[in-house]
Amino acid sequence: MDKINSLYLQSFTFPCIVEDRKQGFLRVFESGNLPFPIRRVFSVVNAKGGSRRGQHAHKICNQLICCVAGEIKLICDDGENQEERILSPESEAVLVPSGVWAEQEYIKDNSVIIVFCDQSYDENDYIRDYDEYLRWKENYK
Amino acid sequence: MDKINSLYLQSFTFPCIVEDRKQGFLRVFESGNLPFPIRRVFSVVNAKGGSRRGQHAHKICNQLICCVAGEIKLICDDGENQEERILSPESEAVLVPSGVWAEQEYIKDNSVIIVFCDQSYDENDYIRDYDEYLRWKENYK
Repeated sequence: MDKINSLYLQSFTFPCIVEDRKQGFLRVFESGNLPFPIRRVFSVVNAKGGSRRGQHAHKICNQLICCVAGEIKLICDDGENQEERILSPESEAVLVPSGVWAEQEYIKDNSVIIVFCDQSYDENDYIRDYDEYLRWKENYK
Repeated sequence: MDKINSLYLQSFTFPCIVEDRKQGFLRVFESGNLPFPIRRVFSVVNAKGGSRRGQHAHKICNQLICCVAGEIKLICDDGENQEERILSPESEAVLVPSGVWAEQEYIKDNSVIIVFCDQSYDENDYIRDYDEYLRWKENYK
């Protein structure tokens, strides 16, 4: 994909607290610092470096993507523009708004993401085919 | 500690979805399946095997402890009784109610826990000394 880099994705900062290297570190998400009330949370764990996940858009659901271990590349696409972000435990979390196609590429093994959603699970909210996504976008112009 | 094993901790089941081994797995937490509305979420990542965390009680806050990678031992203590649970991505999540002393022992490297809380952060809600905890419990009998 060869598109202009201008989705203007919103970022959110959450502390990454290292108390003691041997004891690992905390990442803390206070509900008041999240962009919406939480209806659903999911974690993705143990994806091999180089693997891709996501590859869908949501019609209604907004998702905040947070990397709590390792490193991932988040690729967002609205059919006309594309934006990539590298996410790590030290980086900001990124809001993927409804109507945006998103993919995650796992850069490091043992990367972990936590995703906060403002909607409950609904299979009808997913668009899993990119051509279908472009047609859906076209209808909303 | 040599106490009877009878805290009757409540457990909650959340799906662990493996779509493709290379792509890792999802753990999904729908708000309707959680025991309380979420006010705070934190993750603990990169604790070395054998290390211990927690070692405090909360006066008011209830916490649901979920292991999404690796394996941990959760040790809960109410001053008279003790209960241990091994948590993994395949196991249930355990509710640590307010007023219970809790510790987590990280059994495997790269273990990850996600903790859901029904309260925002408040340092005054923590009891970090076990003797002080026993005195606090004594006052509530």
